[in-house]
Amino acid sequence: MTRRIYNFSAGPAILPESVLEEARDNLLSFQDTGIGICEHSHRGAAFTGVRDDTEAMCRELASIPDNYHVLFLQGGASTQFFQIPMNFLSTESTADYVVTGSWSKKAVTEARRFGSVHQAASGEETGFTQIPSDIRNSDNPVYVHFTSNNTIYGTQFRSEPPASDGNFLVCDASSDIFSRPLDVSKYGIIYGGAQKNLGPSGVTLVIIRDDLVERGSSELPTILQYRTHAASRSLYNTPPTFGIYLMGRVFRWLLDHGGLAAAAERNQQKAQRLYDYLDTSSLFNAMAARDSRSQMNVTFVTGDSDLDARFVKMAADHELSGLKGHRSAGGMRASLYNAFPIEGVDALIEVMKTFEAHT
Amino acid sequence: MTRRIYNFSAGPAILPESVLEEARDNLLSFQDTGIGICEHSHRGAAFTGVRDDTEAMCRELASIPDNYHVLFLQGGASTQFFQIPMNFLSTESTADYVVTGSWSKKAVTEARRFGSVHQAASGEETGFTQIPSDIRNSDNPVYVHFTSNNTIYGTQFRSEPPASDGNFLVCDASSDIFSRPLDVSKYGIIYGGAQKNLGPSGVTLVIIRDDLVERGSSELPTILQYRTHAASRSLYNTPPTFGIYLMGRVFRWLLDHGGLAAAAERNQQKAQRLYDYLDTSSLFNAMAARDSRSQMNVTFVTGDSDLDARFVKMAADHELSGLKGHRSAGGMRASLYNAFPIEGVDALIEVMKTFEAHT
Repeated sequence: MTRRIYNFSAGPAILPESVLEEARDNLLSFQDTGIGICEHSHRGAAFTGVRDDTEAMCRELASIPDNYHVLFLQGGASTQFFQIPMNFLSTESTADYVVTGSWSKKAVTEARRFGSVHQAASGEETGFTQIPSDIRNSDNPVYVHFTSNNTIYGTQFRSEPPASDGNFLVCDASSDIFSRPLDVSKYGIIYGGAQKNLGPSGVTLVIIRDDLVERGSSELPTILQYRTHAASRSLYNTPPTFGIYLMGRVFRWLLDHGGLAAAAERNQQKAQRLYDYLDTSSLFNAMAARDSRSQMNVTFVTGDSDLDARFVKMAADHELSGLKGHRSAGGMRASLYNAFPIEGVDALIEVMKTFEAHT
Repeated sequence: MTRRIYNFSAGPAILPESVLEEARDNLLSFQDTGIGICEHSHRGAAFTGVRDDTEAMCRELASIPDNYHVLFLQGGASTQFFQIPMNFLSTESTADYVVTGSWSKKAVTEARRFGSVHQAASGEETGFTQIPSDIRNSDNPVYVHFTSNNTIYGTQFRSEPPASDGNFLVCDASSDIFSRPLDVSKYGIIYGGAQKNLGPSGVTLVIIRDDLVERGSSELPTILQYRTHAASRSLYNTPPTFGIYLMGRVFRWLLDHGGLAAAAERNQQKAQRLYDYLDTSSLFNAMAARDSRSQMNVTFVTGDSDLDARFVKMAADHELSGLKGHRSAGGMRASLYNAFPIEGVDALIEVMKTFEAHT
């Protein structure tokens, strides 16, 4: 039995233990083929089977409509930050961005290289601790982009911001994708790096509507056209095979554990337990505004950075890893993605109580 | 003991068994941290240690001079096909391309989107079975690009094509990188997907000279500027952590087995043994011209496609996998990358002899 500790890392993050055990058993020989999962040709039957199963499970999990493509790409959300405006924005058009933290700001920076950006709202005034309620789109944006969950400040949208006829909604869902049910039909594009809720780093899930696949310029570099990957089923060039395999095993695990509705229930329960404690603690305080609190990343502070550092150290001594907050937000951050067990939340609360009692 | 068969796949390809065993042992807990290698934050001490070790071993292996950066990127060679001209070519300038097969043709297609391309030579007339000897650069190219080894036709450069003062040499070395010693100082940029000689798919090794890092436009999307990755030590965004880890373990394995000179000797011996048999066989013939034969991908035919198919089937029945040639070349292909054992070559020759005796 391998010793495992509670890993609160914001990403790459904890994966289901059973998934890792299965991957381990397939590293030297995938399904008794005598060839390990990393060593199979992406064109061979073994891997194309993995790819197809992974897509099928993804579709089943999120009830993805038939008029959407499921793509397995590389480059993470940071690549989508430019690839989306490169495909859909021009110097004559405007895209709306809801700015809720560092990641949406980075997305704006890349979009400005290709056309006009209208900030439909910004949480900057509140230090990004709140999801803005007053979102005002421009008259005729090509698309409306938002970041559904903000790892750094620990905020999360409760529902989608408004889009309207003639434009489409784009969501960077890197840090909460498949943590709860979602209505894909509301979106034009949903994208996310796998390394938080879905798998290892190095594979990006992109769910994109049919008509958009065809709409981007065909003058772009081949690999930056969505049609390239849609037409080839993400096999135009060698894909990150191990990442796709592991993502598929996580999909299987999610399906076996009740799908996205059950995942949402577990995630809600984990986060609620920690927020409930924070709301009664006289030492620790939640950073995010109550109506904007993330169920994925719970951020909190003591109000004293030395004390924060001492707490992080004490937690690490109790095998609670990765609790230090992002350098731009300070304090602590407990990331409670899909694979994080509720026992780890209880263990954290116990250590917080002990720390509080001795401070 | 896991049953392993001989995997002649052109990529993703065979990895050293000891490397896979080590990875397996670190999937649930990396170096007894209680957190698996895929689950460690890319900003944490465990992974940044892996990253730094991987770079150090890469530098040691290839004696990479200090004025070169070692980058771990995503997107494979297909991304470098456009990223290089996007950074260095303009509508007022020309780049020279030596065309030796499908991959260099794809590189040309992407380069033409950004500026003029001069074909310094093309092997198309000989069906790409020969590396062209008569290479004529244009007057003032920005760079000269070549593909050091061609997986599809099984040809390989013996030495670099000429570049000259004022331009720089760019090499797509995806399928023979670190299979033999190389003099990095002759190149401006060397790049390669990891999935043949270096590791799993999903990580691209890019070795690039200092001055070139700074030369690309700073107006490009952040992630497409080499300076972004050089300045951040490939940690601007979340890198493919497992791929970098595994690549590091392959570097360690290469160093422990005598470095690139010893690898070259082993690779030479493996390929020679197979070519020697092909040259005596009255049934099988090597496809590549004698002076251009690849030590990585040995291509051969019987001259009868039905017979080829029967041979591939018989070989598979003898646990020799992945011998079917690329669809555009036909016949058979035995990929003999760094990790492929000489015993597998002997096993292949035995089956070829048996097949020949019964045909």
